[in-house]
Amino acid sequence: MRTILLFGAGRSSTFLIHYLLEKAQAENLQLLIADENEQAVLTKIGSHERATVLHVNIFDTQKRRELISKANIVISMLPAHLHIEVAKDCLFYHKNLVTASYISDEMKALDEEVTAKGLVFMNEIGLDPGIDHMSAMKTIDEIRSKGGKIVLFESFCGGLVAPESDSNLWNYKFTWAPRNVVLAGQGGAAKFIQEGTYKYIPYSSLFKRTEFLDVEGYGRFEAYPNRDSLKYQSVYGLDEVLTLYRGTIRKVGFSKAWNLFVQLGMTDDSYVVENSENMSYREFVNSFLPYHPTDSVEIKLRLLLKIDPDDIIWDKLVELDLFNPHKLVGLPKATPAQILQKILEQSWTLAPGDKDMIVMYHKFGYELNGEKKQIDSKMVCIGQDQTYTAMAKTVGLPVAMATLLILNEKITTLGVQLPVKKEVYEPILKELEKYNVVFTEKAMP
Amino acid sequence: MRTILLFGAGRSSTFLIHYLLEKAQAENLQLLIADENEQAVLTKIGSHERATVLHVNIFDTQKRRELISKANIVISMLPAHLHIEVAKDCLFYHKNLVTASYISDEMKALDEEVTAKGLVFMNEIGLDPGIDHMSAMKTIDEIRSKGGKIVLFESFCGGLVAPESDSNLWNYKFTWAPRNVVLAGQGGAAKFIQEGTYKYIPYSSLFKRTEFLDVEGYGRFEAYPNRDSLKYQSVYGLDEVLTLYRGTIRKVGFSKAWNLFVQLGMTDDSYVVENSENMSYREFVNSFLPYHPTDSVEIKLRLLLKIDPDDIIWDKLVELDLFNPHKLVGLPKATPAQILQKILEQSWTLAPGDKDMIVMYHKFGYELNGEKKQIDSKMVCIGQDQTYTAMAKTVGLPVAMATLLILNEKITTLGVQLPVKKEVYEPILKELEKYNVVFTEKAMP
Repeated sequence: MRTILLFGAGRSSTFLIHYLLEKAQAENLQLLIADENEQAVLTKIGSHERATVLHVNIFDTQKRRELISKANIVISMLPAHLHIEVAKDCLFYHKNLVTASYISDEMKALDEEVTAKGLVFMNEIGLDPGIDHMSAMKTIDEIRSKGGKIVLFESFCGGLVAPESDSNLWNYKFTWAPRNVVLAGQGGAAKFIQEGTYKYIPYSSLFKRTEFLDVEGYGRFEAYPNRDSLKYQSVYGLDEVLTLYRGTIRKVGFSKAWNLFVQLGMTDDSYVVENSENMSYREFVNSFLPYHPTDSVEIKLRLLLKIDPDDIIWDKLVELDLFNPHKLVGLPKATPAQILQKILEQSWTLAPGDKDMIVMYHKFGYELNGEKKQIDSKMVCIGQDQTYTAMAKTVGLPVAMATLLILNEKITTLGVQLPVKKEVYEPILKELEKYNVVFTEKAMP
Repeated sequence: MRTILLFGAGRSSTFLIHYLLEKAQAENLQLLIADENEQAVLTKIGSHERATVLHVNIFDTQKRRELISKANIVISMLPAHLHIEVAKDCLFYHKNLVTASYISDEMKALDEEVTAKGLVFMNEIGLDPGIDHMSAMKTIDEIRSKGGKIVLFESFCGGLVAPESDSNLWNYKFTWAPRNVVLAGQGGAAKFIQEGTYKYIPYSSLFKRTEFLDVEGYGRFEAYPNRDSLKYQSVYGLDEVLTLYRGTIRKVGFSKAWNLFVQLGMTDDSYVVENSENMSYREFVNSFLPYHPTDSVEIKLRLLLKIDPDDIIWDKLVELDLFNPHKLVGLPKATPAQILQKILEQSWTLAPGDKDMIVMYHKFGYELNGEKKQIDSKMVCIGQDQTYTAMAKTVGLPVAMATLLILNEKITTLGVQLPVKKEVYEPILKELEKYNVVFTEKAMP
């Protein structure tokens, strides 16, 4: 019997647990789930002879180490900043580790030791990061194996609401941490390369600089640039590339409306609004507008942001109930971003029957035999319901699959890794297709 | 003989030194000037029997303490972060201290000890902060002494170029640290109170939200809000005020043009531009513009920022030579803000004969006997030349005057102070009038 130890069984672990239990008999697995809230986990997964759920406080060092020492492999689905303690214990007890999070500097620093001990610490193997790396590297490697030279790589991903559950004017609902959505793009200029030139876009212009993407059967989307487009340039071997761009996908029109919040300053998380607890939504809006002795909040906002009377963008604001003088913020010492988040959550939370949707889109431009070519690769994944979301599926399944591959010694590259090698992406992308996570490639003119 | 020890004899010390030497005979003063570059000081002030210039490295603790121990009073015109070491030594040797800088938290923390030792540490006694405090408190106290209740206080200040030297389309030249001008308004939202409501403006909208100010004989100005309008609310006793606003003065049209740099992201100081050293001005501009296969940098910029063909704002950009493909930035590892500063310095540096100009403008709204009234108070000061600037005069003279007042025991309030008390502002504002620093008050309708 081989023991898989899973730390953290939150929203993105449903498919992960499901997959491992499905394979438990055939693969001779025992799943140990360590979570703060073991009752919630039990309610979610039900009882299964191969699964044990334990109440574990991750800061209980002794307990954590005891569990790790007995496991065959460890998965951490904890908040990203908590991985490092688990990683250090895994190193000490010679255990392989899998996470879906970005490799932190601390994690990176363990690489040499991890390699020396013959271990694999696989990270960034969820959706984004994760499936993006794997699907991109698959096509990049294929183009290269034919002798092609990559000159352009653009990659886009978005967590959205499925068309059948798309019921508001923003064509958007929160399917992931709302706070990250509100703060998206902050903390520095977005940086990318276009036709050989480095380009920079400040936060205040980010949501004005979108580009369109068409996905057959799902219509037109837009994308705004991520901050970190150059992060994987070397990892993907794209140091010579002329265009390198990563973006976040939304339905068309979202960014232009979101930009209103940015321009007003409502996404700012750096200061606390005076008397936030007792102010109304309307007063919150008014605190970003100039004083006028007679003009209403609505008129001042229209004038400041130059919104025409017939512009649908206005209805998007009204839909959020932003001008309501009776609804109170109710958050003490809150930043504008926290208040905005609360307002948005009242409109953008998934209803019980709602389904989410993941869209991923890559563009590969390359030169082959003197000819310029382009391949577009797209993936759309729709969730089943509020628990079995497309997000949970695309994050959790690659983690589960990688865990099994490492356990079965099919992944052999040692050290602190991310999934850019064929031994990782080939089996996982292939198996994901059985779960309807399918990329469609198309040669473009 | 009484010894005044002055640390730092840079640009803002010319009038300060001049004033003290003028009084040296009558007041029985000896001036000791400690500077890193004693030769430059000698060139500037010439020889004077009452002045001694010493080469002193401020980090030479022993030398610094030796000088302070022998002085009767100390003035620090060093960069603001260096005051604290001087202050601690003054405390140790029981010496009074004068600076023109904002009271830092470290300085503030000395208050109790300074008071206990019977000392005065007078700070913020230059122009802004300095003359702004004094002229504001004078009128506020006058209104209060008549029984009036202040309901509105707006205060504006700007360091500008004098009309006779105003020779560019921006109606602006650097008369103070250029870096501070480029970074102005960054680091958080501007916060103020208008008619009882707290208002917040994000950096990206700051230069769009100006208000006009008319100054007889000098035409129309504009002001954009400072970040710190509420800083002196309690110090001025304005906790009940309905409107509290501080702003920076420019000639009309400056802010709208400056906003182009903000929108493009050229004022960002948080990251380094790739290959900044060898890029041309034109390439610098292009790095903030979208890629286009055929459109020129000029066309892309016009489209992105929606600049009409006949808009004078375009000529302002051209005047800076921003589109020159031959001029190189020449700064290694530079931030956008550093590059922009260099480009601006080539156009906005004062020529040898150029004069600067200080404009200060306060509005006081108050209620008296059930009536609403308003007083506007204005001051314009023009410099003599590049050395004897209005900036040096308005910063240096109050420092010098306060030093003499403390030395003569006319200022008696102990502790870490700023000039809001009558014993400070009354004699200094009166004496400043002799030097043509005059506020004109006018009752407004």
